[in-house]
Amino acid sequence: MIFSLTILGCSSAIPTQNRYPSAQVLHHHNNQFLIDCGEGTQMQMQRFSIKASHLNHIFISHLHGDHYLGLMGLLSSFHLLGRKNDLHIYAPPELEEIINIQKAVANTVFSFNTIFHHLNNQNEGLLFENEKISVYSIALKHRIPTFGFVFREKQKESNIYKEAISAYNLSIDDIKDIKNGKEYYDKKGLLVPHNMLCKPSEKAKSYAYISDTVYDESLVNKIENIDVLYHEATFGEDLRDIAREKFHSTALQAAQIALKAKVKTLIIGHFSARYKNEDVLLEEARQVFPNTYSAVEGKVFPV
Amino acid sequence: MIFSLTILGCSSAIPTQNRYPSAQVLHHHNNQFLIDCGEGTQMQMQRFSIKASHLNHIFISHLHGDHYLGLMGLLSSFHLLGRKNDLHIYAPPELEEIINIQKAVANTVFSFNTIFHHLNNQNEGLLFENEKISVYSIALKHRIPTFGFVFREKQKESNIYKEAISAYNLSIDDIKDIKNGKEYYDKKGLLVPHNMLCKPSEKAKSYAYISDTVYDESLVNKIENIDVLYHEATFGEDLRDIAREKFHSTALQAAQIALKAKVKTLIIGHFSARYKNEDVLLEEARQVFPNTYSAVEGKVFPV
Repeated sequence: MIFSLTILGCSSAIPTQNRYPSAQVLHHHNNQFLIDCGEGTQMQMQRFSIKASHLNHIFISHLHGDHYLGLMGLLSSFHLLGRKNDLHIYAPPELEEIINIQKAVANTVFSFNTIFHHLNNQNEGLLFENEKISVYSIALKHRIPTFGFVFREKQKESNIYKEAISAYNLSIDDIKDIKNGKEYYDKKGLLVPHNMLCKPSEKAKSYAYISDTVYDESLVNKIENIDVLYHEATFGEDLRDIAREKFHSTALQAAQIALKAKVKTLIIGHFSARYKNEDVLLEEARQVFPNTYSAVEGKVFPV
Repeated sequence: MIFSLTILGCSSAIPTQNRYPSAQVLHHHNNQFLIDCGEGTQMQMQRFSIKASHLNHIFISHLHGDHYLGLMGLLSSFHLLGRKNDLHIYAPPELEEIINIQKAVANTVFSFNTIFHHLNNQNEGLLFENEKISVYSIALKHRIPTFGFVFREKQKESNIYKEAISAYNLSIDDIKDIKNGKEYYDKKGLLVPHNMLCKPSEKAKSYAYISDTVYDESLVNKIENIDVLYHEATFGEDLRDIAREKFHSTALQAAQIALKAKVKTLIIGHFSARYKNEDVLLEEARQVFPNTYSAVEGKVFPV
């Protein structure tokens, strides 16, 4: 099962030569989820060979330009390439108006339907699910309405061994019970160990995208035990005050959230252009949470 | 006197790995003029070391996304970098609304004034002038209101030789007359050849940007004798019918316009993504107008 994250952009508001604004693609089985879509996202997708044939859901965390200005260009290219599939866009409501006015002035009707799902603090919760994954929104604390996104794989059932089915002559009801973890007793009334009947499925994994936010401990219980956490880290400790003032986080604060939430892996990004080399931020984060990595364009992280 | 053009983007609607959407910077003495501002323009400016400290005028030919989607990001970065100078934007009127709504949702007030100059077919003509250059708009024939821009350097005065001033004891009125080309007779009543009195100034140069347009011979008299002409060349002759249908030009048609208008140099650009190598288009144009060049990202053309 593929479950991985490709970083397309990791700058904060001002891009640099090595860092485009926020955008990333989460690959899950046959689905691609685009998370934020800063200026140049379509070029970065080309650069990193992201085909977008299975991209039907786009999540926009908030309407600061570095998180959505690439969307209209991406949609226009989808249109020019003849896309037919519906495209779901999860974003604050004003984005629909922005896209619509840009379509209107270009006198363009897209070749596909765009279905906008308006995010607001009241509807925090489940945004989307299919048989394999669920996506939730979390309200963040930034200067304008801003959302994080949590992707939780659904727990797969255990796989019953074919040999066990014939050896114990298991009924469909038996199989269902065993998959659900119920104890099984054979015809002689003896307990059969679970691992002789089935191979446990892989544990369901999870990914959380925490976009622009001030340091906020109320996030911790919403992302507890997440496998991979992306958390913005715009500034270093040298600019902790500016971070608070601008409703951003430092790398060390991102690490503190990761530690408190007991996540397995932390990825930091959204680096201010003033840090030519983000290693200073990475080092600060690793002092608190050693299993931290930098979002680097084109890098693929397994979830 | 610097008068040169830097190409930042030369793709048509769908960018490719080597071609960003339309954008170019015209440098004239201490002024920079940005002409169109496709997605990624601010990154291309960084890539090609365009500092923008003298960029106070932006000309947007029309509101198809590949010609303006980089503007909001560029303005946002100017704001974050603390720009103070007024910025003049010449564009179809709806662009002001698009920028304003994006500022409003981001809850941003720019650190500088943006002064919008609305282009429409009725006000075709002079858009801007300073003591050295004038900029005019031309209405083009495309699917939505679209404009070309003509930059005409003002003819500089001749430089009177200091030696001539003292040798003939020239008065201020004499100097003015000589600069204006009037014949000068010395005290003995003898005609003094002009080239003994002054060095003729360089001939004023001109540049025309013809954005998206169908083949349109009515352009010819508006750009006659231009030094450097940029003309879109989205398609090759293989797709002449599609060019007409989509209100675009072929490379050969661009060359025909250049030939009829007796320009000195032609630059073609706005290449369709289907032409992986634009040389096929360049060859077609050169059959008609040999002094043709391809717009290539980062290339600097003297005017």
